[in-house]
Amino acid sequence: MERVLIVNGPNLALLGEREPDTYGSVSLPEIEEMLTERGSVLGVDVAFFQSNDEGAIIDALHDARTTCDGVVLNAGALTHYSYALRDAVAAIGVPVVEVHLSNIFAREPFRATSVIAPACIGSICGFGPLSYLLGLDAVADRLRRGQ
Amino acid sequence: MERVLIVNGPNLALLGEREPDTYGSVSLPEIEEMLTERGSVLGVDVAFFQSNDEGAIIDALHDARTTCDGVVLNAGALTHYSYALRDAVAAIGVPVVEVHLSNIFAREPFRATSVIAPACIGSICGFGPLSYLLGLDAVADRLRRGQ
Amino acid sequence: MERVLIVNGPNLALLGEREPDTYGSVSLPEIEEMLTERGSVLGVDVAFFQSNDEGAIIDALHDARTTCDGVVLNAGALTHYSYALRDAVAAIGVPVVEVHLSNIFAREPFRATSVIAPACIGSICGFGPLSYLLGLDAVADRLRRGQ
Amino acid sequence: MERVLIVNGPNLALLGEREPDTYGSVSLPEIEEMLTERGSVLGVDVAFFQSNDEGAIIDALHDARTTCDGVVLNAGALTHYSYALRDAVAAIGVPVVEVHLSNIFAREPFRATSVIAPACIGSICGFGPLSYLLGLDAVADRLRRGQ
Amino acid sequence: MERVLIVNGPNLALLGEREPDTYGSVSLPEIEEMLTERGSVLGVDVAFFQSNDEGAIIDALHDARTTCDGVVLNAGALTHYSYALRDAVAAIGVPVVEVHLSNIFAREPFRATSVIAPACIGSICGFGPLSYLLGLDAVADRLRRGQ
Amino acid sequence: MERVLIVNGPNLALLGEREPDTYGSVSLPEIEEMLTERGSVLGVDVAFFQSNDEGAIIDALHDARTTCDGVVLNAGALTHYSYALRDAVAAIGVPVVEVHLSNIFAREPFRATSVIAPACIGSICGFGPLSYLLGLDAVADRLRRGQ
Amino acid sequence: MERVLIVNGPNLALLGEREPDTYGSVSLPEIEEMLTERGSVLGVDVAFFQSNDEGAIIDALHDARTTCDGVVLNAGALTHYSYALRDAVAAIGVPVVEVHLSNIFAREPFRATSVIAPACIGSICGFGPLSYLLGLDAVADRLRRGQ
Amino acid sequence: MERVLIVNGPNLALLGEREPDTYGSVSLPEIEEMLTERGSVLGVDVAFFQSNDEGAIIDALHDARTTCDGVVLNAGALTHYSYALRDAVAAIGVPVVEVHLSNIFAREPFRATSVIAPACIGSICGFGPLSYLLGLDAVADRLRRGQ
Amino acid sequence: MERVLIVNGPNLALLGEREPDTYGSVSLPEIEEMLTERGSVLGVDVAFFQSNDEGAIIDALHDARTTCDGVVLNAGALTHYSYALRDAVAAIGVPVVEVHLSNIFAREPFRATSVIAPACIGSICGFGPLSYLLGLDAVADRLRRGQ
Amino acid sequence: MERVLIVNGPNLALLGEREPDTYGSVSLPEIEEMLTERGSVLGVDVAFFQSNDEGAIIDALHDARTTCDGVVLNAGALTHYSYALRDAVAAIGVPVVEVHLSNIFAREPFRATSVIAPACIGSICGFGPLSYLLGLDAVADRLRRGQ
Amino acid sequence: MERVLIVNGPNLALLGEREPDTYGSVSLPEIEEMLTERGSVLGVDVAFFQSNDEGAIIDALHDARTTCDGVVLNAGALTHYSYALRDAVAAIGVPVVEVHLSNIFAREPFRATSVIAPACIGSICGFGPLSYLLGLDAVADRLRRGQ
Amino acid sequence: MERVLIVNGPNLALLGEREPDTYGSVSLPEIEEMLTERGSVLGVDVAFFQSNDEGAIIDALHDARTTCDGVVLNAGALTHYSYALRDAVAAIGVPVVEVHLSNIFAREPFRATSVIAPACIGSICGFGPLSYLLGLDAVADRLRRGQ
Repeated sequence: MERVLIVNGPNLALLGEREPDTYGSVSLPEIEEMLTERGSVLGVDVAFFQSNDEGAIIDALHDARTTCDGVVLNAGALTHYSYALRDAVAAIGVPVVEVHLSNIFAREPFRATSVIAPACIGSICGFGPLSYLLGLDAVADRLRRGQ
Repeated sequence: MERVLIVNGPNLALLGEREPDTYGSVSLPEIEEMLTERGSVLGVDVAFFQSNDEGAIIDALHDARTTCDGVVLNAGALTHYSYALRDAVAAIGVPVVEVHLSNIFAREPFRATSVIAPACIGSICGFGPLSYLLGLDAVADRLRRGQ
Repeated sequence: MERVLIVNGPNLALLGEREPDTYGSVSLPEIEEMLTERGSVLGVDVAFFQSNDEGAIIDALHDARTTCDGVVLNAGALTHYSYALRDAVAAIGVPVVEVHLSNIFAREPFRATSVIAPACIGSICGFGPLSYLLGLDAVADRLRRGQ
Repeated sequence: MERVLIVNGPNLALLGEREPDTYGSVSLPEIEEMLTERGSVLGVDVAFFQSNDEGAIIDALHDARTTCDGVVLNAGALTHYSYALRDAVAAIGVPVVEVHLSNIFAREPFRATSVIAPACIGSICGFGPLSYLLGLDAVADRLRRGQ
Repeated sequence: MERVLIVNGPNLALLGEREPDTYGSVSLPEIEEMLTERGSVLGVDVAFFQSNDEGAIIDALHDARTTCDGVVLNAGALTHYSYALRDAVAAIGVPVVEVHLSNIFAREPFRATSVIAPACIGSICGFGPLSYLLGLDAVADRLRRGQ
Repeated sequence: MERVLIVNGPNLALLGEREPDTYGSVSLPEIEEMLTERGSVLGVDVAFFQSNDEGAIIDALHDARTTCDGVVLNAGALTHYSYALRDAVAAIGVPVVEVHLSNIFAREPFRATSVIAPACIGSICGFGPLSYLLGLDAVADRLRRGQ
Repeated sequence: MERVLIVNGPNLALLGEREPDTYGSVSLPEIEEMLTERGSVLGVDVAFFQSNDEGAIIDALHDARTTCDGVVLNAGALTHYSYALRDAVAAIGVPVVEVHLSNIFAREPFRATSVIAPACIGSICGFGPLSYLLGLDAVADRLRRGQ
Repeated sequence: MERVLIVNGPNLALLGEREPDTYGSVSLPEIEEMLTERGSVLGVDVAFFQSNDEGAIIDALHDARTTCDGVVLNAGALTHYSYALRDAVAAIGVPVVEVHLSNIFAREPFRATSVIAPACIGSICGFGPLSYLLGLDAVADRLRRGQ
Repeated sequence: MERVLIVNGPNLALLGEREPDTYGSVSLPEIEEMLTERGSVLGVDVAFFQSNDEGAIIDALHDARTTCDGVVLNAGALTHYSYALRDAVAAIGVPVVEVHLSNIFAREPFRATSVIAPACIGSICGFGPLSYLLGLDAVADRLRRGQ
Repeated sequence: MERVLIVNGPNLALLGEREPDTYGSVSLPEIEEMLTERGSVLGVDVAFFQSNDEGAIIDALHDARTTCDGVVLNAGALTHYSYALRDAVAAIGVPVVEVHLSNIFAREPFRATSVIAPACIGSICGFGPLSYLLGLDAVADRLRRGQ
Repeated sequence: MERVLIVNGPNLALLGEREPDTYGSVSLPEIEEMLTERGSVLGVDVAFFQSNDEGAIIDALHDARTTCDGVVLNAGALTHYSYALRDAVAAIGVPVVEVHLSNIFAREPFRATSVIAPACIGSICGFGPLSYLLGLDAVADRLRRGQ
Repeated sequence: MERVLIVNGPNLALLGEREPDTYGSVSLPEIEEMLTERGSVLGVDVAFFQSNDEGAIIDALHDARTTCDGVVLNAGALTHYSYALRDAVAAIGVPVVEVHLSNIFAREPFRATSVIAPACIGSICGFGPLSYLLGLDAVADRLRRGQ
């Protein structure tokens, strides 16, 4: 069975408590539960990783090279400046989909730029927890096609 | 039954023939067929509109105010400068999801800016025809929640 | 009797319904009625044109060369990028006054730039429907002076 | 009877003599006479203040808080950099209309930016002395509506 | 016999009457006559299209895919912002030459940027009606070489 | 006894009445009273100057060269463009601390730049009236150290 | 008793040894001692955290949500690019004061921008170790007021 | 006998005491004495004006319209932002020469831009007090030629 | 017989050998031969100059003032920064046409700016050796019209 | 014997496997072997550190203050934004040479800026593994000279 | 007797013939004659050099290191980009004064930047041939003072 | 035996005398001697060229196409603007290594950009004369590998 890693970056462990007007009231474990469920429908195994640390996230992506077949990545605010994360995405040879809970184009100007997106296969934002589910769908679709 | 309008902007009628390395080999009618099929699964009626004309697209969005419950919009290159289209999206009071076939962040710099995205509920790009299907899923989900 | 054309661009047909916090609750027909009334006071004939289409607006401006003596133009969001409209204003040899309902300097940064204003004789914004009436006054004044 | 203060900034005392190709041949006293006349038609009392000094203009605006019901402001070149004047406009709680004799969008690039406009209720430029009269009309209209 | 479409964008129907100091006193029909004549010398059939509407011009370019062998395009002010037109040029697989009557580098700064040129095979500006004739020569030469 | 001058720039005389959501409801005399009190605790004499006039503030700073041992300066909106004030701070050879009531980094972009700060010994913002008290503490500390 | 966490970012453990012309000769333990002392005067408990690691600092701020009542933060050079840290400050719902030893406005241009400041309640820089003490005063004052 | 006004702006009264490494050790009265002497050689009457106040300097320039035949202007730091002063120079119809003691191109970047220079007949900087003398020579030369 | 100078700038002597994918496989002597031939058809004498040296090219343009009636100029990479060359073109009072082999708008961003074009009568790029021939046609046409 | 630390940043552990067209096919251990060998020729002891974590790299640099005499640093993508790393380089008082495998000037624009280079003694890029060897040579040379 | 070299850059040999509205009708030999005359009054020997070639001008400046005591430099359009010339000025250890005939601040934007001025002792522009004479005065003054 | 040309650009003939704090006290002949010596160790023949003239340097690079196997290039200040030199490097099909004596990233901002580097195989700066030796090593290494 193919395996997809869901990676969450800085501050996403606070979901549900942190600025609910922007990020909603669903917690990260609840999102992970939804993803596990959707994974079983899609026939993919879903694993999870969250860290506030850029280096640890890069380590996790490197591990995913050999242990996973696809990645759904919400890099949090690292999205806007972490070229190291971008290089990790480009380096691992595994399809990565970028997701965001909020519509990053409708907030502060600095959030409208993703330095990571050019290395991903695609990007989804603005749909709250559904962004993750759609991201998982996209990875699963890619795997089904054998690309 | 709720109704979702799929709007395609300039040059998208040439899909399948135009620069297939960038936009793939699937034609617009084929994508529309996929969307109709997915719509019937989701329990939403799917209608289609394509035009190369900014004004005609704005007219279609205005019509959608009273005839549709949601919109999936691929504005083509109008994405990058048509503030009039953005205002139309903001004006109609119907949820609009922005989609793109290609990863607009991995191409020429001017394509990385969407002037329309801030008025949409979310944005999806990079997955080829699947971008439309995910966009339809997102609209349907929004309608299901009654937001 | 001299004739002034009131030109309204994209999305202005939705006035009164669209984002009333920004654009007010008066509809376009109501504004047109006010203008007709003020025209009869000023002794000028007032005609109306609205379109969501840049090309149709340029056509209307070209027609105005031979059928009208002045123009009051609310180009909507075309204001911020339509150099074609600017060239039409410069080409027709008829005085054009730019008007806006909202104060375009007090909103998103992109609205603070008008590419059309340099080709107009003047610009008025921020006064709601009164912006049109003042614009008509300005055109009428210009016609009275024979400039 | 309500009272409107007409405020003129640096170099406007030279009107009629200074660069007549740009600013016209009407002097400031002549414009003030026109405004007094229009005020009596509108049923508002019109007072005048001119200074070349940013600080004195801010003082005058502060005074207007308690002595006037509206302001028509031509800040001259202070328009383009005096954030202190902008803050004064925002602070006094009295409606202020920005006016300019020339079309500031059709001249040097630095004149196309007004740092004061965002704090005003609206802006009028390009009509020569008529700009002031239209500005007075706009203030009077605002006062009539009791906003 | 090969066929070349001459496409003229917004405001070019006013040639000869509009700002003659910038655009000269030759009318568009006169230019078209010159082009027909030069076409017969070059052994190519010359067809004409003019519109003030971006969408109609894109439609015409799409039609040219199957009906013409080359295009000479003066996009007027759309040159400076119409990425949709640029994508149409790139999409149709027919050689397109960009022409302008005036020297776009010697006028306002915004005219020195062509968003369309990168998708054309080449660009010619500054020679008045001769720009079109040279553009036709360039297309004919390309067709002769079978590229 | 050492003497510290508290200098307030444009619009600060309106404190307590002006935009209380941004600037709070404490008046300038009340702040000055707090400062006098804190001065007596710190063993420094506190004097006050407020003006809406850039020139008068520069004059006051020049006077402070010989009459004061330190300055706490809230330059209001002059902070963002008055290089003349910056040069005055640099010229007088007396330690100057910049203070602001509001957090200038959390407001409009133009407020995030201080052209005066590089000439001051330090900068404090965001704490309301406490910003002044902390500024006085910082000046007093500097004087105690004899720097 | 209320508790304030003093957070120091990258390279601050080298204080006293590192570039003493810029950062002074006082070591971090000496500053922490001063803060403990001042805390006892203010009646607040003071705790300390230093790390060179962005992720570890975010973890510490998250912990502070439940264990502390306020934070004094010197983020070192992370100040200028760590949007992840900014989001952490915004997420934790505890007042955070930004401090810097040196005057960040009087050094290299990149240091004059703080991406963290907009999420803090205020900012203090330029006073050496005193910056921390003033920051502690500001947090304590905020806690006293129960905001 | 023709009359030349020497105008000095903000902070120039401190010459000789203020930052002598940058501005030299000669005082303003000493420079004025040199200018008087040079004026008598050149056969022009030399008058002096210094103020720290932008408005007062504009007033003085307006007075110079009728009382002087030329102006030598060191606007101090107003040079870099006072468009009001620039407009005064353009308005008065008297030749104005800009001078600076220091080489404004060899200092902070903001000093390399003069918003006043475009309205002057020429500009001289970098020679200390000699800059004024050369400026007086240039004005006298202009007057001799009757331009 | 009138005389046209063909000027080639840096690196153009390597044509045919240098980066043939970009510049084609035709050598400079071969292009010169084509131009001579076209010149004889057009009834103009064609002369040639090539240098890698900006100064030598300016010298050649100065010489052309008295010895030639028109110039076709491919300035190579000097196009993008040599304001000295631009001034030479403006100074010599002889019509100059700018030509480039490649489409300078479809390459690196720095090549899309020509500092020389504003001083030329027109510009042609993208057609390989044909660019020169069209340039010669344009000069000959200008000479025929006696402009 | 003197000791040089070779520091490798994010993603460099994947060398040889990651994007070999850009980074070559030599692995990091192979490069380290080359460096050990070259170190023995140069008479310096060579130690190695690699981490994907900015904080860990800063820690390693701090350790190097007391344990090493020089550093060769390939910061990977941290090169382009980690001001914290730059400050660490500046803080440790040990000569640091920046190296890169690829020519960072010939890739994406963001890679052409190094925020770390200004704090290093020099920079070497583009030579693949040889960049490290040259960097070691440069450090050894510096140590030999006792600087 | 001390010796001053007058250096003129590209296109200045055409003075008097080239664009007389901008540069006047006096020829370079006439200016050189004026300078020789003024030199004899000042007691300095005046030598002349003109070239259209950046390299030749740098050579001349290098020669001036040992043969001259000062330089008056009109670099023509090289002023705006020749960092090589700037480095030559900085390298030669002889005082250099920059002069321009026209007011470079009142022309095209690119002319308002001098990359050479920061390495000169001062700059003079706008006075026609008098600019050179004032420049010579400034150099002579500097030599008299033995700086 | 293979042959490497060492090319030095403007002002480098003054090495040892010119600004020794920046460029060191070693003369160019001394550096050339070091290079000859290192060349004999490496088994490559080393030739030298220095000129202050961009055109002459391009000529020398063109000659190197047929006479040399590699180039070490210190372009001096031409590094920052000479696109013509960049094109020469790209045109000659011989590996070129860019070197600089000083660390160009630690000086004025304009020196941090090399327009030549993208066409070179690599770049070395900051090590004084050693930069050249390392550059020669890099060229020799490249030649040994037969690339």
